[in-house]
Amino acid sequence: MNQISASTLPPRVGRLKAGMVKHGVDVIVSFKPENSFYFTGFNPIIYSHPVIAILTPDRDPIMLVHALRDDHGRASAWVPDIRLYGSWSTKVTMGPNWQDALASILGDLGVIGKTVGIEEDFISISRLGQLRKALPDAKFADVSHLIDHCRLIKDPDEIAHARIAARIADRGMETAIAGLAAGGNEREVCIASMHEMNKLWTAEYPDVEVADFGSLEGGVQNGMATWALSGPRMFYNCDNPTTRKPQRGEAVSVLIWTIANGIHAENERTIAMGPLPDANKRALDAIHEIRSEVDAYIKPGTPYKELFEHTRKGLKARGYGANIPGRIGHGIGLGAHEHSSLDANSPLVLEPGMIFTFEPNIRVPGVCATQISDTVLVTETGRDYLTRSTGGYLEV
Amino acid sequence: MNQISASTLPPRVGRLKAGMVKHGVDVIVSFKPENSFYFTGFNPIIYSHPVIAILTPDRDPIMLVHALRDDHGRASAWVPDIRLYGSWSTKVTMGPNWQDALASILGDLGVIGKTVGIEEDFISISRLGQLRKALPDAKFADVSHLIDHCRLIKDPDEIAHARIAARIADRGMETAIAGLAAGGNEREVCIASMHEMNKLWTAEYPDVEVADFGSLEGGVQNGMATWALSGPRMFYNCDNPTTRKPQRGEAVSVLIWTIANGIHAENERTIAMGPLPDANKRALDAIHEIRSEVDAYIKPGTPYKELFEHTRKGLKARGYGANIPGRIGHGIGLGAHEHSSLDANSPLVLEPGMIFTFEPNIRVPGVCATQISDTVLVTETGRDYLTRSTGGYLEV
Repeated sequence: MNQISASTLPPRVGRLKAGMVKHGVDVIVSFKPENSFYFTGFNPIIYSHPVIAILTPDRDPIMLVHALRDDHGRASAWVPDIRLYGSWSTKVTMGPNWQDALASILGDLGVIGKTVGIEEDFISISRLGQLRKALPDAKFADVSHLIDHCRLIKDPDEIAHARIAARIADRGMETAIAGLAAGGNEREVCIASMHEMNKLWTAEYPDVEVADFGSLEGGVQNGMATWALSGPRMFYNCDNPTTRKPQRGEAVSVLIWTIANGIHAENERTIAMGPLPDANKRALDAIHEIRSEVDAYIKPGTPYKELFEHTRKGLKARGYGANIPGRIGHGIGLGAHEHSSLDANSPLVLEPGMIFTFEPNIRVPGVCATQISDTVLVTETGRDYLTRSTGGYLEV
Repeated sequence: MNQISASTLPPRVGRLKAGMVKHGVDVIVSFKPENSFYFTGFNPIIYSHPVIAILTPDRDPIMLVHALRDDHGRASAWVPDIRLYGSWSTKVTMGPNWQDALASILGDLGVIGKTVGIEEDFISISRLGQLRKALPDAKFADVSHLIDHCRLIKDPDEIAHARIAARIADRGMETAIAGLAAGGNEREVCIASMHEMNKLWTAEYPDVEVADFGSLEGGVQNGMATWALSGPRMFYNCDNPTTRKPQRGEAVSVLIWTIANGIHAENERTIAMGPLPDANKRALDAIHEIRSEVDAYIKPGTPYKELFEHTRKGLKARGYGANIPGRIGHGIGLGAHEHSSLDANSPLVLEPGMIFTFEPNIRVPGVCATQISDTVLVTETGRDYLTRSTGGYLEV
C-alpha cells in the first residue's frame, strides 16, 4: 500500500479523523461527489460509477474508482492509494463491482463489521440497500454533519482556490455591468460575462479546473454562471436569464457563481438603470448602510446569530421590520450553497478559515428588492472580502 | 382546486397514471429535480427547498413549492394546482414546512395511509426519515423504475426541445472544429464553442431556458458545455479542458452537451489534426463503417441488445474483438445520461419516441481512441438524427 507522510495531506483529513475518534466512527465511506472530492482531490465530472473515499482514523485515505477512471484519477487525486473496480479495457481490478471491492478493502482494514459512517443526507435508499448487502455486519452511522462541520473551516488550498474563483467572478461582474450600460438584454449581458470569465480562466489559470458537481444523471463541465433578474423579475428570486431588456428606472440584479478547483465564489450586485424610484433608491441606500454597520462584526468570535441580529436591527430602524430575510448569508465552498446559514438560530461562531456569503437583502413584494452578495473569508483578526467588485450605489 | 382538462396535460401524465394503477401505487411524491420538473414544468434551479410533484391515478398533478418560489413557479409550471409551504414575505402558505403541507394534501386526497411511491434511487436516508415522520401510516414503494420507464418515451414537447438542443450542439461542434483548425488549445476551442452556442440561444430561442439539474448544494444556470480531450488525454475518458494545444498527427475528441427547456442533446466527434498514424486512422475508418452498418437497424422493433450485437460483430470482424465497449449509447433527455444503456443485456426494444445517443467507440489503451456520438430519435418507421454535424473522417 502506497503510504505518504501525514504532513503532506491537507489539514481536513486530520480534522475528520479527530471527529471520527470523538464520535466512535471506525470507517467512513463517502459517496457524495463534493465530499469524495474533498477527501481525494478527484472529480470525474460524470458520476454514473461512484467514486468512494474510504477514511479510517489511523490510515491515509483510500480512493476506490471504476477502472475507466484510473488514468484520470491518478492524474488528479492527491490520495496515493487508488483501488479499482469494474471492467474496463485491460485494467486489473478488485472485482466486477464497487460492492465486492469495498467489502474486501474494509475486511483488510479490519473494520468491516464495525461502525461505518455514511452520508445519510445523500445516500439514497437504493444505495443503502446495496451497502447493507455488501457489508451485512456493519453498523451504519450518519456522518453528514461531521463532514459538513469539517468543511466549515477551509484549508489553505481551498482558500487559494476561493481567491481565484472570486477574482474570476469580479471580472464577470465588471463585464456584466458594462453590458447593462451598453443596453444589453439579460441574456446578452450574462453570456458576455460568462465568456469573459472563461477567457480569464483560459489565459491565466492553466492549473485550475472549473468543473462542478452536478446531478448524478448529468455532469457539469463549466461552473461559471452569470444570471440576471431585471425589474419585476427580481421577485422570482432565481431564474434563467431572458431576452428582456432592462428599462430605465428599473433595478437589475446580476448574480455570479464561479468555481476554481472545486471551490465556489459568489458575487451579486443590484444595479440602477438610471435614476430609480424613491422606494428602490431608499432600499439600496439602507442595505449599503447596513452592510457597513454589520461588517464591523465580521471577525473571529462573533456568533452567526449576532450578525443576523445586527442586520435585523438595522432593517427595523430603517422601516423594513416587516421585510426581514430568513438568512443573511450561507457557507460557500465545495457547494455554492453549503452548511451553514447565517440566521437567527445558528449555534455557530465565526472562526478563522470560514468562508461565507455576506448578503443582507431587502424585498418589499411588488415594490423593490436588493441582491448584493460578497464572498468573505474570516481571518485571524477580521475578514477579507474575496470578491472585490465596487460596492455602494451603482447606477449606469 | 384548479382543474384543467386531461387533454391539455402532456401524455407522460397519462402514461404514469396507467403505470400507477398497474403497480398498485396510490400516490407518488416526486422529489428528484429531473422528475418533479417532468411532472410540473418547473425547475427552480436552486433546490435547497424541495419541489414536490404529487400524482394520483385520478387527479391532475399538484405542485408543492416553498413560498419563495411562488411567483417563479406560477410563471413556469404547466401544472395549474400549486400549493405553498414555508415562510416568505407576505405569502399565505399551508404550513411552516413541506412535511405538514404534504401530510395535509395527502389527507385531503384520501391517500395518506396508502401506498406512497417514492424515488428510492434518489431519496436520501434523511429524507426518508422525514417522510416516515410526516406520513406515519404510509406504505412506501419504489417508483424509480416506473418513472424511468415513463421517461423512455419522449412527448412532443420534449422532442421539440431535443431538436433545439441538438441544433445548438451542432453550432457548437462547427465552432470547435473551426477553432481546432485555427490552432487553438483545448480550452480556447471549448470556450469559443460554448459562447457561440449561447449566442445562438440568445438570438433565436427567447422562450427556451438552458438551466440544468445540479447538485442539491449547487444549481446549474447554463447547461451548455463543450469539452475536449486531445492526444493521450483521450484515455482519461472525461476531463475538464486544459491549455494543451493539440499536436499535428494527434486525434482530438470534442464532446458537447446542451440543454433546451430541460432536454439534453449530445454531439461528439473525433477530429484528425492532419494525417494520423495508421492505427488511429484505421480505428476511425472502422468505427464509421460500423456506424453505417448498425444504423440500418435503428427502427422500431429492434432490441437494444441487437444493436449492441451488430456493433460487436463489426468490431470483431475488423480486429477489435478485445476492445468491445460496455455499451454503445444511452438514453438522453432530462438527464444527459439517463435510463437506459444500449448494451448486451438490455431487455428493451426500440419504440417510436425514444431518444438515445448512438456512440459505438474503439479504445485501444495507449494507442488510439474514437469518440463519436449523435442524438437519435426513433420515429414510426426508422430514425431521425437530431444532431447533424458532418460525420465520417474529419481532418483539419
